[in-house]
Amino acid sequence: MSATPAAYAALLERAAELADLRGIGALLWWDQSTKMPDAGARSRAQQVETLERITHHKATDPEIGRLLDELEPWAGSLDPDSIEARALNAVRRDFEKAVRVPDDLAAEMAGAAALGEQAWMRARAAGEFRLFRDALARQVELRHRYTILFPEAEHPYDVLLDDYEPEATLAEIRPLFTELREGLLPLVAQARGDGDGPAEALPGAIPAASQEAFMVELLRAHGYDPRAWRLDATVHPFAMSIGVGDTRLTTAYLATGLDMAFWSCLHEYGHGLYESGIDTALRRHPLGSTVSLGVHESQSRMWENAIGRSRPFCEWVTPRLATAFPDYFDDLAPDRLFRDATRVRPSLIRIHADETTYNLHIVLRLDLEVRLFGGDLRVDELPEAWDAGMHELLGVEVPDVSHGVLQDVHWGAGLMGYFPTYALGNLMSAQFWATLRRELGDVDGMLAQGDTAELREWLRERIHRHGRTFPARELLRRVTGEELQVQPFLRYLRQKLADAGHLGAGAA
Amino acid sequence: MSATPAAYAALLERAAELADLRGIGALLWWDQSTKMPDAGARSRAQQVETLERITHHKATDPEIGRLLDELEPWAGSLDPDSIEARALNAVRRDFEKAVRVPDDLAAEMAGAAALGEQAWMRARAAGEFRLFRDALARQVELRHRYTILFPEAEHPYDVLLDDYEPEATLAEIRPLFTELREGLLPLVAQARGDGDGPAEALPGAIPAASQEAFMVELLRAHGYDPRAWRLDATVHPFAMSIGVGDTRLTTAYLATGLDMAFWSCLHEYGHGLYESGIDTALRRHPLGSTVSLGVHESQSRMWENAIGRSRPFCEWVTPRLATAFPDYFDDLAPDRLFRDATRVRPSLIRIHADETTYNLHIVLRLDLEVRLFGGDLRVDELPEAWDAGMHELLGVEVPDVSHGVLQDVHWGAGLMGYFPTYALGNLMSAQFWATLRRELGDVDGMLAQGDTAELREWLRERIHRHGRTFPARELLRRVTGEELQVQPFLRYLRQKLADAGHLGAGAA
Repeated sequence: MSATPAAYAALLERAAELADLRGIGALLWWDQSTKMPDAGARSRAQQVETLERITHHKATDPEIGRLLDELEPWAGSLDPDSIEARALNAVRRDFEKAVRVPDDLAAEMAGAAALGEQAWMRARAAGEFRLFRDALARQVELRHRYTILFPEAEHPYDVLLDDYEPEATLAEIRPLFTELREGLLPLVAQARGDGDGPAEALPGAIPAASQEAFMVELLRAHGYDPRAWRLDATVHPFAMSIGVGDTRLTTAYLATGLDMAFWSCLHEYGHGLYESGIDTALRRHPLGSTVSLGVHESQSRMWENAIGRSRPFCEWVTPRLATAFPDYFDDLAPDRLFRDATRVRPSLIRIHADETTYNLHIVLRLDLEVRLFGGDLRVDELPEAWDAGMHELLGVEVPDVSHGVLQDVHWGAGLMGYFPTYALGNLMSAQFWATLRRELGDVDGMLAQGDTAELREWLRERIHRHGRTFPARELLRRVTGEELQVQPFLRYLRQKLADAGHLGAGAA
Repeated sequence: MSATPAAYAALLERAAELADLRGIGALLWWDQSTKMPDAGARSRAQQVETLERITHHKATDPEIGRLLDELEPWAGSLDPDSIEARALNAVRRDFEKAVRVPDDLAAEMAGAAALGEQAWMRARAAGEFRLFRDALARQVELRHRYTILFPEAEHPYDVLLDDYEPEATLAEIRPLFTELREGLLPLVAQARGDGDGPAEALPGAIPAASQEAFMVELLRAHGYDPRAWRLDATVHPFAMSIGVGDTRLTTAYLATGLDMAFWSCLHEYGHGLYESGIDTALRRHPLGSTVSLGVHESQSRMWENAIGRSRPFCEWVTPRLATAFPDYFDDLAPDRLFRDATRVRPSLIRIHADETTYNLHIVLRLDLEVRLFGGDLRVDELPEAWDAGMHELLGVEVPDVSHGVLQDVHWGAGLMGYFPTYALGNLMSAQFWATLRRELGDVDGMLAQGDTAELREWLRERIHRHGRTFPARELLRRVTGEELQVQPFLRYLRQKLADAGHLGAGAA
């Protein structure tokens, strides 16, 4: 291999600048969702738009193309598995995608996101779809304008999907979603007969400050370091890395119980561990970001479900809950927590859905998005299509739009093509989890002790540290030896539901 | 006047972009000072540097010069008092200043600020000037290199001063500072005989959360709106507008008493009102920022001192203090609070200085800065010169550098030429305040009722809304009919000290 050329160093410098700008963008978003006074929304939208225009302009600087061309001969001499070769591929991929999009459209999409979110919030609070209709139509129109910039795509939806799950296509994922739906429907039918149980696994009028103190303490036992992390309150929990040593989780503290904070903190912690686990040497580097939202979600769902909603974790956490909140959880038995935390209960709201019915919510959203961008569904028809889908897939009747089509922020914020990554993440999570259990040995024993050090190191070493060095499917193959599949997830679910007694005796 | 040309619109668009970038920079700073986990410091420094490089690059784009030149004939046809003419002057002024500074020097100054601040922190903690010496020498050297880029300046110090108090010169302010010193020295000598009194006016081991709740409640009575403002804890209080409808105050809650939070909240509220009061139509416009740090400080000192440390305000707030904190202030009399809050007590630390001795701290700093940049003082001689000045001006002996030359962050951060604006602000504040009292009538009556609505409207209408439409001296003339003067401030002080009984009977 020849010596590293100056043009490569120049590309790395540009990547570092773009990474800084994206970190700044992350901070703007975090602030807006946690701290910004409401009246600041319009100014913030302008700032976000300006930052996006500058970032996009820099990401599409023709000089990047020139540097890539200049490096072609050198690239040809590299080991294709080398960091340099991978980095050049990533830079070329990003550049060739970005240059298709005019600066103005990029800025418009960024600005419309903030405003669309505001419209969504008002509409949901009022329970009126018409207050959201125009903002949504604008988002769909902007995304239409975006998809036609990539005429080579087999389906317009592939263009949207690729932004969140690079290289995934509708042709790849549609059969997986069909198999998932066909596997889930009978499982839900079998398990939902298990009675009603409590609406929440951890009910109780616990003050927000006590919930927060408990969650920070819990996460600290699993590696959360206050010198490098934050936990803040928000409406819709999310996790975000602003930079090295600056990982921020958010959650919501409800007056009705600990469930929201408990499960969402575990979930967001999985996201945060992934972002913070990227090799420091890769930060501000073309490979220094997460590889796909599917892989991202595989990590969060693993912490929320495979770890959090496991019998041994419930055994570890139950006495801690009893100590922290004796008024509410003094007589809580680990088996009872495990059973309630895994109960199957078709319901209206995705983010409160149990682990089993959850993916049916995603099946519906993929179907609606594909019809919307395939020209088979108009924006005005969405609420009705939503309600029909909920009836068909989950057997529930939607009482109003706030509990139906308006429940998620995504479409208002322009995040179309994003939802499927939740289900893809669940599938990958099951495959990663099975591999981890096989390789680490007595994982249940570790979880029962509340000891996740080895488990976290495995995740960091095998998945997190690589950033986007390996595309998602390659990463999955390297870690598990498998292609993306549905059956490991269904197996994982069946076994857990049987273990928790939700399928009746011997049903696994 | 001819129709607005496209080149003017193009300049406005560039100004809007720069305003957005500065709002983003403000957020980065605010976050770093209030929320960022410690371990995020390095990444944040990189983000700040990237943002500053981009901002400086945009502020010096030769296209701005071209647009200005193209607009010359049109500008000649404008009423010089029109917004358009004023805006063009502001754009030209900013551009011609910025293009003098090479990118490298701008970047070096930005980098040295972060490093200098760190060196200062370590040196102050250790109480050793030698740990700060090199960083300070570097700042002085960088500022020397900066000042020689403006060879037309009468004194190198004018170049530094102009960054914070545009158009002010040493020739203008030096006589004012001499007059100020000559007026203050006898006043301090007369008033300091008034015994020791308590070290704090509002002592008490009040929990931070209770201090915060009280201060928010107090500010709300004077127009603080939680939908558009925030109040957060930090080490060194500051105020910052991130955008329209997003004004952020910070304060510190000490375990020893309410003083720090109380006076700094009033002070920062004055800053915040100024920034938030700029006409919304001027935001993202060349005239949409504050005009000078002196005018800025005139507003903060007015709220802290002219309002906060007035007899009628003390009368209004005392029963509120007693209700909120009966353990500490149940028997606090308004007259006692007023007396303690105005007591003259020569001391070592500027930010804790009383209203009367405060400006002597500034007199010293100006003297040292001018000697440093006039070539009459070397960096190594600073500690000794500091101690001698403190002895001469305030009659106090400096026990160590942490309570002496190392007490302020400014020099480490490269903020040289900044200190005089504090005193200029005090002078302007007295002139504005006298005018306001003359025009509004029974201001004392309003303050005794805790009613500042009319007063705030006067400040907004006469000062805040104009942004930087009028240069500072012109603004002062327009509002007060006066040039910048020392005597109104001395008169204001003498009267207050007499009223509080600090000068003995009939001394006013």
